[in-house]
Amino acid sequence: MPNPTAAMLVIGDEILSGRTRDANMHHLAGELANSGIDLCEVRFVSDVHQRIVDAVNALRASYDHVFTSGGIGPTHDDITADAIAAAFGVGLAVRDDARAILTAHYQRTGLELNAARLRMARVPDGAVLIENPVSAAPGFSIGNVHVMAGVPSIFEAMVAGLLPTLSAGKPLMSQTLRIARGEGEIAGPLGTLAAEYPQLSFGSYPYVQDGAFGANVVIRGSDGVAIDAAMVRLCALFPEATA
Amino acid sequence: MPNPTAAMLVIGDEILSGRTRDANMHHLAGELANSGIDLCEVRFVSDVHQRIVDAVNALRASYDHVFTSGGIGPTHDDITADAIAAAFGVGLAVRDDARAILTAHYQRTGLELNAARLRMARVPDGAVLIENPVSAAPGFSIGNVHVMAGVPSIFEAMVAGLLPTLSAGKPLMSQTLRIARGEGEIAGPLGTLAAEYPQLSFGSYPYVQDGAFGANVVIRGSDGVAIDAAMVRLCALFPEATA
Repeated sequence: MPNPTAAMLVIGDEILSGRTRDANMHHLAGELANSGIDLCEVRFVSDVHQRIVDAVNALRASYDHVFTSGGIGPTHDDITADAIAAAFGVGLAVRDDARAILTAHYQRTGLELNAARLRMARVPDGAVLIENPVSAAPGFSIGNVHVMAGVPSIFEAMVAGLLPTLSAGKPLMSQTLRIARGEGEIAGPLGTLAAEYPQLSFGSYPYVQDGAFGANVVIRGSDGVAIDAAMVRLCALFPEATA
Repeated sequence: MPNPTAAMLVIGDEILSGRTRDANMHHLAGELANSGIDLCEVRFVSDVHQRIVDAVNALRASYDHVFTSGGIGPTHDDITADAIAAAFGVGLAVRDDARAILTAHYQRTGLELNAARLRMARVPDGAVLIENPVSAAPGFSIGNVHVMAGVPSIFEAMVAGLLPTLSAGKPLMSQTLRIARGEGEIAGPLGTLAAEYPQLSFGSYPYVQDGAFGANVVIRGSDGVAIDAAMVRLCALFPEATA
């Protein structure tokens, strides 16, 4: 059986404006590879309601799982819950279980559960909460869409709680050979070898270092025996390279 | 006149597999902000022909410019040029001007212009070449789509040559106030202030540091006078914060 497929949707202007470098995509990609869920596509969209709605609907129709990051806080630019509800055509309201989580959290910390904070208890009808062990305000799953916070420490904690509940496939394994030759010399024999192992993916990632060209060739797949065999063949083709 | 809009398409399995952290999106986002071109959406897709074709066609119909990164090298997994030609419904062939660039480069470096390297002279019909000052093999622009290499040093050099040729808008400027309060306390007054400046974007980016919550509030726009005025108002609302 093939691995489940996934997409990610990163919501907000922060990364698109160039201010901040992505962290959540990189984290999720690594976690999904370990879980045997194939991350096939990631989209970053700005804080525009219809763009979020359209992206959610396109991705949830195309992949087994969609993971979102960002836009579920208390401020005016946090519009993700509204957009998810609109994408699914369901209502959005403060829900008792989510409110109870926030009430307990703010009582513990001595802060007021004001109107802005109460927005974080709004959940689309039919969603299941995702626990937030860092700052209480929950994420939620609706259908195959899992909605999580953008702050990296909170996103990572939510992913850690969520992933074990999803049916997983075979972990993605890889081996890398660093070859100090231009890709143009690697390409011919590599293409021939790749064609012999259709169940594996052979990626060639060129680099420039101190003015010299080389490539990291990465063999990926969930069949460890085949990866080992292909790696032996690859090393024989480029005996000067380093694994 | 509003600024031109843009999207980016990053092609390849390397980042989606979790192996490598993005660099090109972050670089382009900063350069476009400086150039007054609004980056509205970024997609990462894996090395699957139809996914690339569909993404190119969706993005070029929605935005003024589309910038792509990756998949134009000599190896079997470099399928971007084919996908771009398919998206535009035009032919793809080795072109004399591109071949001449490669011939001169490999003569200079003493390497053979073999069949794999010659693939890098294949250009969709009607495209205009983008110069590659690092490793010669050109990118190309066709319609509103600008196709560039994935190696960061080459991507950055191509962007540096390309951007001055595009009609630009007003640079995106921003000011940031770091407020050591939870977003729940910032949200109310911030939302009211944001509503008074519809020409600016107010982003609130929460953080957790040493167990304490805070937020960076970023005011963005191309009207520097309005940003200054809004920043004065924001500082008055949160006098303990640091700009």
